[in-house]
Amino acid sequence: MSESERANSAPGGSKQRTGVWLVGGRGAISTCVVYGWHGLTQGLVPSTGLVTAADPLAGLPYRPLSEFVLGGAEVRAGDLGAPAAELMRENVLPENLVAACSSEAAAYDARVAPGLLDAADVGLPDMLPEAARRGALGPREQIAAVLDDLRRFQAESECDRLVVVYLASTEAAHEPQADWESLEAFEAALDAGRSQPASVLYAYAAFQAGAAFVNFTPNRGASPRALQELALERGLPHCGNDGKTGETLMKTALAPMFAHRALKVLSWAGYNMLGNRDGQVLSDPLHRESKVRNKDVVLRELLPNDDLHSHVAIDYVPSLGDWKTAMDFVHFEGFFGAKMSLQFTWAGSDSALAAPLVIDLVRLADLALSRGESGLLAHTASFFKSPLSGGTHDFHAQSAALASYAKRVLAESR
Amino acid sequence: MSESERANSAPGGSKQRTGVWLVGGRGAISTCVVYGWHGLTQGLVPSTGLVTAADPLAGLPYRPLSEFVLGGAEVRAGDLGAPAAELMRENVLPENLVAACSSEAAAYDARVAPGLLDAADVGLPDMLPEAARRGALGPREQIAAVLDDLRRFQAESECDRLVVVYLASTEAAHEPQADWESLEAFEAALDAGRSQPASVLYAYAAFQAGAAFVNFTPNRGASPRALQELALERGLPHCGNDGKTGETLMKTALAPMFAHRALKVLSWAGYNMLGNRDGQVLSDPLHRESKVRNKDVVLRELLPNDDLHSHVAIDYVPSLGDWKTAMDFVHFEGFFGAKMSLQFTWAGSDSALAAPLVIDLVRLADLALSRGESGLLAHTASFFKSPLSGGTHDFHAQSAALASYAKRVLAESR
Amino acid sequence: MSESERANSAPGGSKQRTGVWLVGGRGAISTCVVYGWHGLTQGLVPSTGLVTAADPLAGLPYRPLSEFVLGGAEVRAGDLGAPAAELMRENVLPENLVAACSSEAAAYDARVAPGLLDAADVGLPDMLPEAARRGALGPREQIAAVLDDLRRFQAESECDRLVVVYLASTEAAHEPQADWESLEAFEAALDAGRSQPASVLYAYAAFQAGAAFVNFTPNRGASPRALQELALERGLPHCGNDGKTGETLMKTALAPMFAHRALKVLSWAGYNMLGNRDGQVLSDPLHRESKVRNKDVVLRELLPNDDLHSHVAIDYVPSLGDWKTAMDFVHFEGFFGAKMSLQFTWAGSDSALAAPLVIDLVRLADLALSRGESGLLAHTASFFKSPLSGGTHDFHAQSAALASYAKRVLAESR
Amino acid sequence: MSESERANSAPGGSKQRTGVWLVGGRGAISTCVVYGWHGLTQGLVPSTGLVTAADPLAGLPYRPLSEFVLGGAEVRAGDLGAPAAELMRENVLPENLVAACSSEAAAYDARVAPGLLDAADVGLPDMLPEAARRGALGPREQIAAVLDDLRRFQAESECDRLVVVYLASTEAAHEPQADWESLEAFEAALDAGRSQPASVLYAYAAFQAGAAFVNFTPNRGASPRALQELALERGLPHCGNDGKTGETLMKTALAPMFAHRALKVLSWAGYNMLGNRDGQVLSDPLHRESKVRNKDVVLRELLPNDDLHSHVAIDYVPSLGDWKTAMDFVHFEGFFGAKMSLQFTWAGSDSALAAPLVIDLVRLADLALSRGESGLLAHTASFFKSPLSGGTHDFHAQSAALASYAKRVLAESR
Repeated sequence: MSESERANSAPGGSKQRTGVWLVGGRGAISTCVVYGWHGLTQGLVPSTGLVTAADPLAGLPYRPLSEFVLGGAEVRAGDLGAPAAELMRENVLPENLVAACSSEAAAYDARVAPGLLDAADVGLPDMLPEAARRGALGPREQIAAVLDDLRRFQAESECDRLVVVYLASTEAAHEPQADWESLEAFEAALDAGRSQPASVLYAYAAFQAGAAFVNFTPNRGASPRALQELALERGLPHCGNDGKTGETLMKTALAPMFAHRALKVLSWAGYNMLGNRDGQVLSDPLHRESKVRNKDVVLRELLPNDDLHSHVAIDYVPSLGDWKTAMDFVHFEGFFGAKMSLQFTWAGSDSALAAPLVIDLVRLADLALSRGESGLLAHTASFFKSPLSGGTHDFHAQSAALASYAKRVLAESR
Repeated sequence: MSESERANSAPGGSKQRTGVWLVGGRGAISTCVVYGWHGLTQGLVPSTGLVTAADPLAGLPYRPLSEFVLGGAEVRAGDLGAPAAELMRENVLPENLVAACSSEAAAYDARVAPGLLDAADVGLPDMLPEAARRGALGPREQIAAVLDDLRRFQAESECDRLVVVYLASTEAAHEPQADWESLEAFEAALDAGRSQPASVLYAYAAFQAGAAFVNFTPNRGASPRALQELALERGLPHCGNDGKTGETLMKTALAPMFAHRALKVLSWAGYNMLGNRDGQVLSDPLHRESKVRNKDVVLRELLPNDDLHSHVAIDYVPSLGDWKTAMDFVHFEGFFGAKMSLQFTWAGSDSALAAPLVIDLVRLADLALSRGESGLLAHTASFFKSPLSGGTHDFHAQSAALASYAKRVLAESR
Repeated sequence: MSESERANSAPGGSKQRTGVWLVGGRGAISTCVVYGWHGLTQGLVPSTGLVTAADPLAGLPYRPLSEFVLGGAEVRAGDLGAPAAELMRENVLPENLVAACSSEAAAYDARVAPGLLDAADVGLPDMLPEAARRGALGPREQIAAVLDDLRRFQAESECDRLVVVYLASTEAAHEPQADWESLEAFEAALDAGRSQPASVLYAYAAFQAGAAFVNFTPNRGASPRALQELALERGLPHCGNDGKTGETLMKTALAPMFAHRALKVLSWAGYNMLGNRDGQVLSDPLHRESKVRNKDVVLRELLPNDDLHSHVAIDYVPSLGDWKTAMDFVHFEGFFGAKMSLQFTWAGSDSALAAPLVIDLVRLADLALSRGESGLLAHTASFFKSPLSGGTHDFHAQSAALASYAKRVLAESR
Repeated sequence: MSESERANSAPGGSKQRTGVWLVGGRGAISTCVVYGWHGLTQGLVPSTGLVTAADPLAGLPYRPLSEFVLGGAEVRAGDLGAPAAELMRENVLPENLVAACSSEAAAYDARVAPGLLDAADVGLPDMLPEAARRGALGPREQIAAVLDDLRRFQAESECDRLVVVYLASTEAAHEPQADWESLEAFEAALDAGRSQPASVLYAYAAFQAGAAFVNFTPNRGASPRALQELALERGLPHCGNDGKTGETLMKTALAPMFAHRALKVLSWAGYNMLGNRDGQVLSDPLHRESKVRNKDVVLRELLPNDDLHSHVAIDYVPSLGDWKTAMDFVHFEGFFGAKMSLQFTWAGSDSALAAPLVIDLVRLADLALSRGESGLLAHTASFFKSPLSGGTHDFHAQSAALASYAKRVLAESR
């Protein structure tokens, strides 16, 4: 425990805790978050990949990792054993870590409630009956069910702060709706019983419960203006959308280089291969749409030429398991119109890339709660493919903004 | 001609000109600079790859491109015809451009004087007898010969400002010498007749002639403290070393991404294949040493872990001609110790990547002369593998510094 | 002229010639065939890429290249100037070759007749009115028009042998039809006025004209049983389908390696990027279907495991022009279930890869005509993605079969 | 047990066994051979990667795998635990396999004798004192020591046949010597006490012991003519050199494709990265030489053009561990002199690639012993970078030769 962590630690202990509610609580990322969190507190896992544990973010007055309690919601049957076994077989989770954290995993499992199935996914096999039942309720009843789970979790875990993290599968793409334009319109839609995406309902319930909300998926979550109004009204922080862990990270690190050098990118084709459940869900064009859009738009913002030809594919390659592989081809023009190329292949474990960022975002959201920050956490833009705060997609500029935030907090907390 | 260019343009015309002296004046890069410069002024070549023609550098009060006169020095026999033919055959220089600029090329050829052969290279075949003769002179006589050429060029071209650009082949590596520690010690060494690298002699002569000095090569040039003293004494600007055009550009754009994300780079192996004269010269281990050193040191500065294993190879692959190809393998560790990888292949025309940067640096050096800036031009760090001003190798931070300079100049010039 | 070529050369001269009718006569491949052919006969182009000019095929009793006359059919307006200019700009066709063959190109242009537009493509812009008019005729009239062109060409060119090569764009995929099951059924369908794919009509007309038929495209051509019957009835040779020039060539060279080593290929994802007209046509899913099918089926035949996951994409990347680029990812399992990978990137000029193979196939088809071979030329399987003769897709086995043929012909011709 | 295996199985049992003596008995490959062998007999490991278990080699009358006894020699201290732990950590050996085979591993360890240290490596740290002592003996005494070990192993294991497999580290390169030209000259050199490479001494001792000899390394082994004479004199089979498992396998599978298509390979640069002990040993230029030579010569034989520029690098990249990665760049010329390229990256576990081939070679050598074949086993050429039998390096042709052998043996054994 660092000095600043100690300062933030509760004197009496039991009530100074933060609850973390993982929606999609037995997916690969959540599984890695659970084992990783306990591995970190027990010193079994080094902090590699954890931005909040490295300069310049390391010294902020975070609540100690040991004073967080993890719980969540899941639409599928089973316990943490199955995803953990799969992640061990795929050489992501170390076997000794899983063995060492078995009691923590069981305790976590006991805190996982049935999730809320998105309307478009009702009818899929392998779902919890209760999740399906909830999927078919009216929106007010759905919210009430979620709120009930959140409040029970908070009470039982004796937490004074709450962070809800959205990690469920990519849902079917939804066009922006008039109902989302204002909180008033949204409330009216709920009253009228008009169905809403699960991610939006979770954001609504989170804010009702006084929680911070982190949307690590491309789903709508708290992005509708109605939800943003609600967060401000309640004085709660939130951030999203869509964790930037691999190919898009590379794009936002590399595209500025071409712009700075006045090299004209003609084409950028990105081929993403995924073998985990995420890949399986995204093999359905309906679900893929939001993801592809996020991955593509960054280039249009970062590269000035209007006739850029960009192409993003996401393919399901089951043998890869959690090890996503992206092959990108960048065709660019230099002086004299000379055509040149850059190709890259990025191969990494999807969950091992995402999990530490989720932990980072929980810590930053909890810090924001403790500091009374509300609304969009613009300093988290570097974590997202599609930051809700807008601004540049340039990863380096986003990282500089995060460093500035850290400097400011440090100055204020001295 | 842009508005700012017009403002800077001379009223009387003939005397308000800048002379550009290219050392290595018929190498591939110089050839591209000559044709590219005339192509730009005649509107035959778009400004792709020219940093000074794009935001945020586009609006600075540069002297118009048409008011520069190009000349240079060369140790090998022949005229611009041979390198131009080779670059056309390799699809770098467009045939119609070469045809359209034939009279300008001939005029340039007439302004190329014999170069000064580096001592270590005396005896190589295919050299001008006069270059070899000069290579064997004492250092004071060598300087006098170069100074004589520079002054004649300036007089004949009726230039009021002068920029010397060092573009000659990579010379044999020289360890730092006691003679270089101060201007006084250096003058004593010259008096004592102790032989000096050609690049250092050119820097010395340039400053004696009142010129700005740009070192685009890994050679010593103006890097010794003695030369830096001389530049300051004369109030002259200079910058270097070693243009950052390909693999190292990629390294300095990508390594910060790993650092920002707390991902631990375990190994970075970079395989560079070059087919032009540069590759041939670098296939000699003695000449390769300075280049490899510059390409490697950037990673050690940008990546925090001490046990990073980095490896840089430069191989001569003649069939590539001017199209250098780099294949890099980056092995890194994420959360749970998961080992991941990034590979990239960068394939581009060495000369078409370098030439616009040389033109940029001439414009920036000339702007500095016009503004009375002296000493190291720290804002040019993004152009170099081994910026003399030190500071970070992070390409994005360097680009931000260049943008700040542009903003300041713009503010001052209004 | 080699000795064997001299032997085959006509004594009287004028009447011992072979006419070559290129359907798609001003596409990129045909353009390269025309300039390449004349470049070869004039010694301006080396025989690199020409299988019939290298061991073990070099010594067969081919008719000399100078005794072939090229003509063809084209549905789009214009002359050879436009595709030649584009191919020069893309660094495929050398400018001096185009200049040296200008009169031959003009003569060829004069021998190009309007093509027969496939029914599905009637209405596309930029088409010759006559091609569109023909596209709308009944099948018997269409055949008559083509036959008329072929006979006029043969007469005017004074050729004693004729080879028709199908090089037109990929047409919309057609499911096998009952009408194609026998020649009798097909004749009845023609009589009934049932519309047929253009490639099938050309094959029919070719056989009626006594020509050999080479189908270098994935289109149906002479693959229906009805057409194969006709070829046998007339004693004419033919071969196809779909030239194997790039990624599929790699697949059929590499997949056998995995099989020989008992390594289990789990997934093979192939991403093809094309920038020429072929790429544009294939960006339409309807046209893409036949191509993708041919590229995929080879793996299923060469790799024994039933649960192989294979994926083929073809994307239009306009900046590439004629330079197609394929990036493949092969995931395989070795001993202990260890997962390993092979990735490759193949980058080459589509037309420069295809044109010499077309010339090879014309020479082999003409040789077959001269030797009285009829029906499928099974020894040409190595040239095709989808050889009509069936058999293995193993490129090495196919090459061995071609070498055996060469040995047999040599033995017989001594 | 297949039917043919059953047929070959001994009626009485105990004496119908083959002893396998692994030189380098606790290196990574041997470790995988030991666990793999027991995993195969116990049905814990599928036969993926085992050529003798797949068509067309599957049905030959091999002795059943369960009737082989493994032992060996090792120069370093320790037991199988250390390499097994490392291979588990690197995700090569499955943990459950190691657990299941612990008693077999211990029994194997008890059968491992001290090895013979190559003279050039005497003085290295971490070596068994007895291995170092043996390394300093005269050659006749060295042979006697090895022979003693072999005879004791054979007696204790009650084997009627013996196969010695050379798997020790790459030794310092040795130029061919006059002493090796004939068995007589070699015997005289031994009598004169002239020092010999360890691999040659092992081959000599193996033949004296009546064993077959398999050399999986680039070391000299049985390649000197003197040793080949001895093998023939004793009527014993042998094969080598240098297992073809990765980049060279790719080269010999791909280079024939370029040759068949008359495409002119201009340059082939191969960058090999190794992280295991093999990589460490090869990071010494003296040891690297033999390996690089074998990897390079295959291209010169397979590609006809004399001015091919080929380059092979082997670099030690410790983070890779057993997972060797090769990045190759192939630059080739097609029609019209168009320059094209192929790049590939091969990433696989060195030991998991090698171990099944070693098992295959033991089975084939044992089969040869049982059939009375003597001298070079030319049908094993596909297994080696540098097959002693000479002939083509074309992997496909080599595989065809192996298939022919299988067909012949099957015919004879019916």
